[in-house]
Amino acid sequence: MPVRLIDSLASTEPLAELFSDNSILRAMLAFEVALARVEARLGVIPRAAAETIATAADSGRFDTAELSRKALRAGTPSISFVKMLRQIVAATDETAAGFAHWGATSQDVSDTALVILLKRVQPLIEADLARIEQALHTLSEKHSNTVMLGRTLLQAAPPITFGLKAAGWLAAIRRGRERLSRAFAEVLVIQFGGAVGTLAALGEEGMNVAQELAVELGLGLPDAPWHTHRDRLAALVCASAIVTGSLGKVARDISLLMQNEVGELTEPQSEDRGGSSTMPHKRNPIGCTVALAAANRMPGLVASYLSAILQEHERAVGAWQSEWPTVVAVMQATGVAAASVAEISEGLTVDADRMRKNLSATNGTIYAEKATILLSGRLGRDQANRLVERAAKQAVVKNRQLADMLGEIPEVVRCLDTQTLERLSLPEDYLGSAEIFRQRLLQNRPGIPKKD
Amino acid sequence: MPVRLIDSLASTEPLAELFSDNSILRAMLAFEVALARVEARLGVIPRAAAETIATAADSGRFDTAELSRKALRAGTPSISFVKMLRQIVAATDETAAGFAHWGATSQDVSDTALVILLKRVQPLIEADLARIEQALHTLSEKHSNTVMLGRTLLQAAPPITFGLKAAGWLAAIRRGRERLSRAFAEVLVIQFGGAVGTLAALGEEGMNVAQELAVELGLGLPDAPWHTHRDRLAALVCASAIVTGSLGKVARDISLLMQNEVGELTEPQSEDRGGSSTMPHKRNPIGCTVALAAANRMPGLVASYLSAILQEHERAVGAWQSEWPTVVAVMQATGVAAASVAEISEGLTVDADRMRKNLSATNGTIYAEKATILLSGRLGRDQANRLVERAAKQAVVKNRQLADMLGEIPEVVRCLDTQTLERLSLPEDYLGSAEIFRQRLLQNRPGIPKKD
Amino acid sequence: MPVRLIDSLASTEPLAELFSDNSILRAMLAFEVALARVEARLGVIPRAAAETIATAADSGRFDTAELSRKALRAGTPSISFVKMLRQIVAATDETAAGFAHWGATSQDVSDTALVILLKRVQPLIEADLARIEQALHTLSEKHSNTVMLGRTLLQAAPPITFGLKAAGWLAAIRRGRERLSRAFAEVLVIQFGGAVGTLAALGEEGMNVAQELAVELGLGLPDAPWHTHRDRLAALVCASAIVTGSLGKVARDISLLMQNEVGELTEPQSEDRGGSSTMPHKRNPIGCTVALAAANRMPGLVASYLSAILQEHERAVGAWQSEWPTVVAVMQATGVAAASVAEISEGLTVDADRMRKNLSATNGTIYAEKATILLSGRLGRDQANRLVERAAKQAVVKNRQLADMLGEIPEVVRCLDTQTLERLSLPEDYLGSAEIFRQRLLQNRPGIPKKD
Amino acid sequence: MPVRLIDSLASTEPLAELFSDNSILRAMLAFEVALARVEARLGVIPRAAAETIATAADSGRFDTAELSRKALRAGTPSISFVKMLRQIVAATDETAAGFAHWGATSQDVSDTALVILLKRVQPLIEADLARIEQALHTLSEKHSNTVMLGRTLLQAAPPITFGLKAAGWLAAIRRGRERLSRAFAEVLVIQFGGAVGTLAALGEEGMNVAQELAVELGLGLPDAPWHTHRDRLAALVCASAIVTGSLGKVARDISLLMQNEVGELTEPQSEDRGGSSTMPHKRNPIGCTVALAAANRMPGLVASYLSAILQEHERAVGAWQSEWPTVVAVMQATGVAAASVAEISEGLTVDADRMRKNLSATNGTIYAEKATILLSGRLGRDQANRLVERAAKQAVVKNRQLADMLGEIPEVVRCLDTQTLERLSLPEDYLGSAEIFRQRLLQNRPGIPKKD
Repeated sequence: MPVRLIDSLASTEPLAELFSDNSILRAMLAFEVALARVEARLGVIPRAAAETIATAADSGRFDTAELSRKALRAGTPSISFVKMLRQIVAATDETAAGFAHWGATSQDVSDTALVILLKRVQPLIEADLARIEQALHTLSEKHSNTVMLGRTLLQAAPPITFGLKAAGWLAAIRRGRERLSRAFAEVLVIQFGGAVGTLAALGEEGMNVAQELAVELGLGLPDAPWHTHRDRLAALVCASAIVTGSLGKVARDISLLMQNEVGELTEPQSEDRGGSSTMPHKRNPIGCTVALAAANRMPGLVASYLSAILQEHERAVGAWQSEWPTVVAVMQATGVAAASVAEISEGLTVDADRMRKNLSATNGTIYAEKATILLSGRLGRDQANRLVERAAKQAVVKNRQLADMLGEIPEVVRCLDTQTLERLSLPEDYLGSAEIFRQRLLQNRPGIPKKD
Repeated sequence: MPVRLIDSLASTEPLAELFSDNSILRAMLAFEVALARVEARLGVIPRAAAETIATAADSGRFDTAELSRKALRAGTPSISFVKMLRQIVAATDETAAGFAHWGATSQDVSDTALVILLKRVQPLIEADLARIEQALHTLSEKHSNTVMLGRTLLQAAPPITFGLKAAGWLAAIRRGRERLSRAFAEVLVIQFGGAVGTLAALGEEGMNVAQELAVELGLGLPDAPWHTHRDRLAALVCASAIVTGSLGKVARDISLLMQNEVGELTEPQSEDRGGSSTMPHKRNPIGCTVALAAANRMPGLVASYLSAILQEHERAVGAWQSEWPTVVAVMQATGVAAASVAEISEGLTVDADRMRKNLSATNGTIYAEKATILLSGRLGRDQANRLVERAAKQAVVKNRQLADMLGEIPEVVRCLDTQTLERLSLPEDYLGSAEIFRQRLLQNRPGIPKKD
Repeated sequence: MPVRLIDSLASTEPLAELFSDNSILRAMLAFEVALARVEARLGVIPRAAAETIATAADSGRFDTAELSRKALRAGTPSISFVKMLRQIVAATDETAAGFAHWGATSQDVSDTALVILLKRVQPLIEADLARIEQALHTLSEKHSNTVMLGRTLLQAAPPITFGLKAAGWLAAIRRGRERLSRAFAEVLVIQFGGAVGTLAALGEEGMNVAQELAVELGLGLPDAPWHTHRDRLAALVCASAIVTGSLGKVARDISLLMQNEVGELTEPQSEDRGGSSTMPHKRNPIGCTVALAAANRMPGLVASYLSAILQEHERAVGAWQSEWPTVVAVMQATGVAAASVAEISEGLTVDADRMRKNLSATNGTIYAEKATILLSGRLGRDQANRLVERAAKQAVVKNRQLADMLGEIPEVVRCLDTQTLERLSLPEDYLGSAEIFRQRLLQNRPGIPKKD
Repeated sequence: MPVRLIDSLASTEPLAELFSDNSILRAMLAFEVALARVEARLGVIPRAAAETIATAADSGRFDTAELSRKALRAGTPSISFVKMLRQIVAATDETAAGFAHWGATSQDVSDTALVILLKRVQPLIEADLARIEQALHTLSEKHSNTVMLGRTLLQAAPPITFGLKAAGWLAAIRRGRERLSRAFAEVLVIQFGGAVGTLAALGEEGMNVAQELAVELGLGLPDAPWHTHRDRLAALVCASAIVTGSLGKVARDISLLMQNEVGELTEPQSEDRGGSSTMPHKRNPIGCTVALAAANRMPGLVASYLSAILQEHERAVGAWQSEWPTVVAVMQATGVAAASVAEISEGLTVDADRMRKNLSATNGTIYAEKATILLSGRLGRDQANRLVERAAKQAVVKNRQLADMLGEIPEVVRCLDTQTLERLSLPEDYLGSAEIFRQRLLQNRPGIPKKD
C-alpha cells in the first residue's frame, strides 16, 4: 500500500501499510477474537459464541469508511466497530453477538489494537537501526586513520578522524536504540479494564481473563489498566524522538559535508535519487533531506503527545482522543529516518583526499593551539599566545603556513627546532585520544552488532 | 472520500477529500496547465503545446501510488509528477512535452498546489466559524439575564450571566476568524521562481509570466518567490492554532458544565452521538471531545511548523520537505474543531434552573466580597473583612446562608438594614457591568454576522 | 535566595539557588580546580600551579555581571570565565595562570558545570517524589474500601475506590521516578574533550586525565566527549516531562474533585495558601495550580530541547547555546510540581461521605451495564440492552432509581429477583478487580518505599 | 542590571532589566496608583486615599523576596503584593489602605502589569528591527550586481545576486515587524474585570472606571475583561516567533556563508567577539549563534504558550499561571535575536571576489539548465537534456568547463555559435528577474525605512 502523497516523505511503505484502515481493523479484530477465545476457555462466555465471533472477524466484511464516519460522531471508532462486529456475528448467531466485546470498553480495544501495531513497528525500526550501526562500524574501522577537519561553530578547527566521527554517530544511535527497546518493552502491554478500569462486568474473573488475554496476544500484563496513565506511550514517543534526533544529526553533518565547497562525503546516488530536474549534474542529499524532515517534525510531535498526558479521571475528554495521529506520525517519522540513514550509511562515499585538502587549506592555522602549548613551557602562556596569535594572523593575511610564520619569529626559533616546526601541521601528530575514544565508542556491548 | 481511521477524529470529510492524493494531483495539474496557457499567451511556448498539455492534464491518467513511491526517492513529489506529465503529453506530441513545466522548479508546483488547496480550505472553515458566531450571538441574546456561577480556579465565585459567557466565547472566536482571514489573504499568493528564485530560464519574460499566472490561478502575486521565506504560511498556521484554542476553550467550558454534578449545559445528542456502549444513559460531550482533541494537538503542530522556518539559502534541506503533513494536520484540526463547536453551539441545551440552583448551593458565600464592600464604608476594610470572613466560615460549617450569619453579628446589623441583607444573595444585584460588557462583545463589526 | 518574581510559581527556592549565578560559577570553578589537581597529580602541569589555581578559585572574586555581559559577546560564558580565572591566578603567580583550564575547551567547563548542578538536582526532586509515593501509598491503603464514582469523559460511570485511584497515581509517579533515575544515571558523566573532542592538547595523557577527572568530580566517564551528542540530556529532559505529566494528572484530578459541586477532596489549606483576596471562604486548589502550571509548560520546553539535538559537527552554532535556559526551566518545573504534589498528597482531605453521596445522586443509572449483563444471560444482549436503556432513560426523566424502573418491567422481574434488584446499586458489589489492581499497583519493588 | 548567567545568551540587558523584580513591581504599582487616582476622580474612593496610596507606592518599600516566596504559596504574586501595599498605606492612613486595589482582582494587576511592560518592550525590539531593515537595504542596494551562487539543498545552483538575497531577508523581517506591530496593538489593552470579569464590586461605575483607567495608563480599552481569553497574547507570542524565525534564517544563511570553505561573508568581529580561546585565528559567527539559539527555543516556547489558552471558566487553574516565564522568554529571545542580527547586518563584510570564485569553481555546471533551454528550441527538450547531461558529467569528471564539453559535441555546435557558448557561464547573463524581484522586495511601504 503506497504512502499518501501528503505523507510521501513522512513514512516508509511498510509503516504506512501498518497503520492503514485495514491493518488497524485487523488489530482490533485480533483483540476481540482473543478476548472471546479466552473468555470461552474460562467459561465466561459460551465456546460456540467465541467460535462464531472468530469466524465473523473477517476484516473484509467491515465497511471502514462507515467506521470512520461514525467514529467522528461517537468520539471513538470502537463503538461502531463493536456494533458492526455484533451485526456480522448476529447474521450467523444472534446470541453469540451479545458475547462479543464481553466485559471490555471501547478504549480497551483501541489501545490494545495500537499496542498490537506498535509491536509490529518495533522490528521494522530496529532492523534499520541495526543496519546503520553495522554500516557505521565498518566505516569507522575503515577510516580509523582518515584525518579530516574538526569543525566548531562551522569553522575549521584541529583535526579529527572520520573514524571517530562515524563512531560518535554510531554510539548515539546505539544508545538511542537501547532506550527505544526499553520503551517498547514497557509499552507492549494489553489495555483491558472495562468501563472504569475495574473489569467489574467480569465479576471475579477479571484478572484471569486479563492474564490469559495477555498471553493470547503475546503482550505483557500491566499492573492495572492504564486508560488515563499514558506515561509508557509518552516514553516510547520520547525515545523515538531522541533516536530520530541522533539520526538527524548524522544527516545534518553529512549534508554539510556534501556541500560543493566541502565535498568530503557523498550520499549514494541512483537513477531515481538525488538528481535534479533542472540541474542534471547535481548530487542532492536526498536521504539527508528525508531524515532531516522527519527530525524537524519530531519536537512538535512530542509536544503534542506530552500535552495529552494530563488525562481526566478514568477516561479523558479530548486528550486520549488526540493521540492516534501523533503516535502514528512519530513511528512513521522514526521509521523513514532510520531507513534513509541506513541507505546513506551503507552507500556513503568518503573522499579522503578532499578531507586532507580541506585540512591543508587552513594553512596550518588550526594548529595554533598546538603551537601555543609547545611554546608555553618555555615562554609562559601569555607570551606564547601573543606570538602564535601574531603568526596566525599573518598566515591568514599572507596566505602562508603558520609554521613558516612562526619560523620567522626569533623567540619561537629559539624554542622550537626545525623538525618540530615541520611536523607542526601534521594532522596525525595532533589527534590526541581520538583513536582511544573511537574504540571505546565502538566497543561491543550486549545487543550491539559484532564487528565483521 | 472518508477520513482514514487513524485520522477519524482529526478531520472532516471535506477536508480529508481536499488533501487526498487525487485532489493534490489536480491542484498540481492546475498549476501546470495555467503556466502553459500563460506562457503560450505571452509567446514563451507554442500555443499548440499549451493545448496538448492542458488536454493531457487529466488526473485519471496518473499513477499516484507510483508518484508517492518516487517522491520518497527524489525528495519531492514534483520531479516524478513532471516526468509523468511529460510522458503523457509526449504520447500525443513529443515536442509539446518539453514545454511542460517550462521555467518552473519543483518547489513552484508543490507550493502553489498547496496554496490552491488552502484557498479552498478557507471558506470551509470560515463558514463553520460564522455558524458558531451566529449561534453564540443568539444564545447570548437569549440568555442575557440568565444568571449562573462565575467560577475561578474551578471554585464558585460571584455570579455572571450565561449571556456574558457566550459573548466572551463569541468575541474570541470572531477575533480569531479575523486573524485567520488576514493570514489567508497573505498566504494566497503564487510560488513561481524557477531553480533559485530568479526565473532565469524565462529570460526577460519572467515577471510577465508570473503576473499572468497569478491572475490565471486567482491568486495574489508576491513581491518575489518565497522558496525559503515561510513566514506567511507560519502566520496562517499560528492563526489557525489560536482560533482552535478559542474553540477549545469553549469546549473545555462546556464539558465542565456538562459534568453530572454541575449539569448546566448539554451538548446536542443524537442516535449516533454521545452514547456509550456500556452506559446507555450517558450523554457524553463528544463534540467537546473532538474539539479538545484538535486543540490538544495544535501547540505541537505549530512547533513543528515553526521549526521549519529556518530554511537554508534558496532551497532548504529537510525543513521545507517537512511542511506538508503539518500544514494539512493544522487545517484539518481547525476544520474539525470548528465543525464540532458549530454543531454544539447550534444545539446547546441550557438549564437555567440548574444554573440558579448551583448559585443557591453556595449559601451566599460567593457574595462575601459584596458584603465586605457594603460594610467597608462604615467599618473600614479590615474590620469588614474580619466580620465577613467569620460569617462566611460559619456559613460553610453550619450549612446556612451567609446573609443569615451576618444578620447574627451585631456590628453588621448596625450597618446593614434587613432589606440589604435580604438582597445580598440576589445574583441580579451583583452583576456590575456584565450587560455592558456583553453588548460590547456582541457589537457588530465589519464582517461580523448581523444579529437577527 | 528567592525565586525571581517572574518565576515565582515556576521554581522552588532550592532549585532557584542551585542555578543562581554564584552556584553556576562555583560549579565551573569546581571543574577547573579538579582539572588542575588531576593534571598536577599526573605530572601534566606543575603541582604548585594547581595549588595556586585552587586557591584562586573563590567565587567571591569573580564579577558575575561582567561575566554575563561578556558571555553574550563571546557566545559562551566560559571564555570570559577562564580569562578572569587566569587573571586572578596571575595576581599570585603569572606562570600558574597559563596552566588553568589546561587542555580543556569552553564547552567542557560549561557542560560539566551543568552536570555537576544536575547531580545536586536529583536528590531534591527524588526526595519529593518519594514523599508523594509514601503519602499516596498511605492514602490508598486507608481508602481501599472508599467507593466513589468512576468518571469517563467527565461523566458519571460505575464505581471505583479512591484507594485504586490513588494507587494508579502512585504507580505512574513511581514509573516516572524510575525513568528519571535511569536518565540521571546516564547524564551524570563529565564532558572533557578539548577543542574538537580529541584531547589533542594533552598528547598521550588525555584519557588518563579524563579518568581521574571523573573520579575527582564524582561523575561518570563517558565513552568519549559528547559535545554535539546531546541524547543523554534529551533523555533526562523527557523523563522529567513525563513524571511532571503524571504529577499534573494527579493535580488535574484533584482540582476537578475539589469543585464545589463535587466536593470529594480538599487540598491542605493554610493561612497563606488557597485563600482569595476577595472571597474569604474559598479553598482554592493552589498546589494543583502550581503543578498544572509546571505541567503546562513542559511539552513546549521538551520541544525546545529536542530542537537543539541536531548539532553540527564538533560544536554547534546556536543549538548547544540554546540549552541552558531550557534545561534549567525543566528541572525547576519538575521540582516545583513535585514539591506541590508532595504537600497536597500529604495533607489531602478525603470526604468519603460526599463520594458516596455523588454515587447515589446518579439514581443507579451507572449500573446500567451491570443490569444489562445480569439480564443478558436470560434475554440475550439485544433485548437486555433495550430494556435497560428504557429503564435508564425513565430513571433520568422521573428522577427515580434505575432499580425501581427495572422493577416495573415485567420481563425484568421474571429474570431478576428482588434481592438482586436491591443490590443492583450497591457500589461494593460492582468493583470487579479493583482491589486486585490496587494491590498490584502498590506492590513493593526495588527502590519503592515500603508500605508502613 | 546584568542578565543572569543561565540567560546570558537569552536576553539583552534592557530586556532583562525590564522583567526584573523591581521593574515588575513598579508596573504593578503603576496599575494600583492609576486605579486609585481614577476611582478618586470619579468619586468611588476618597481623594485623600488615592493620594496616600500614590505616595506609598514606592517600590523601594517592598520586599520582593518575600513577595516571591508568598506568591508560590498563594498561586499568584498579586495577593501578597496587595497585602504589602495595604500595610504600607496603613502605616500612614489605615482607612486609605482599604481603598487600595478597590474593585480589582489579583489577575487584573498581574495582567495589566504585564501589558505595561510589553508596551515598553515594543520600541526596544522595533528599533533593532528597523536597524536591520536599514542595514539590509543598504547592503542590497550596494550589492545589486554582486553575483553569487544560488544554493539549493546546500548544493550549487544557478547564480543570484547578493542584493536579491539581502532583499529577501529584509522583506521577510519587514513583514514580521508589521505582524508584530499589529499584535502589539491588539495586546496593549488593560485587564480590569474584578473577581469574575463583571466589575460587580464597582456597581454602576465599573465601565467608567475602566475607561478612565485605560486613559490613565496609556493603554487601550478592550470590549471586556479577557481573564481567560488569551488569544491576543497568543497572537503576540506567535508574531514574535515568526519574526525571530526570519532573523534565524538570516543567521543560518550567514553562518553557512562564513564557513572557511565558503568564505563569502564575515560577521563583524571585535576584541571580545568571535574569538576562540584555543584558536586565535578563528572568526566565529557569534551573532549568528545568538540569533540561532533564540530561534531554536522559539517553537517550543510558542507551544508552551498555546497550551495555556484552554483556560477554564472565569479564571484558569494552572494555564494562566504558567504564562509569565514563557511570555518573558519569548520577548527576550526576540529582542536578543534582533539585537544580534542588527549588529551583524550593520557590520557584515561581503567578499564579492570569493563569491565569484565559488561560482567559477562549479565549472559552469550550474548553467546546465540554461544550456538545455538554449538547445531545446532546436533539438527538442529530450535530446537537449541528454546532450547537456552528458556534457555536465564530463565536466565534473574531467574538471573542465561545461561550455568546453558542449563545444566538443557536434550536435551542440550546430545549434550554438561560439559566442553563445562563451557567454554561457557568465553569471550576469543568467539572472532573469533577479533585479526586478529585488526592487519589489525593497519598495517602500508605509512604515518601511526610506532608502538613503
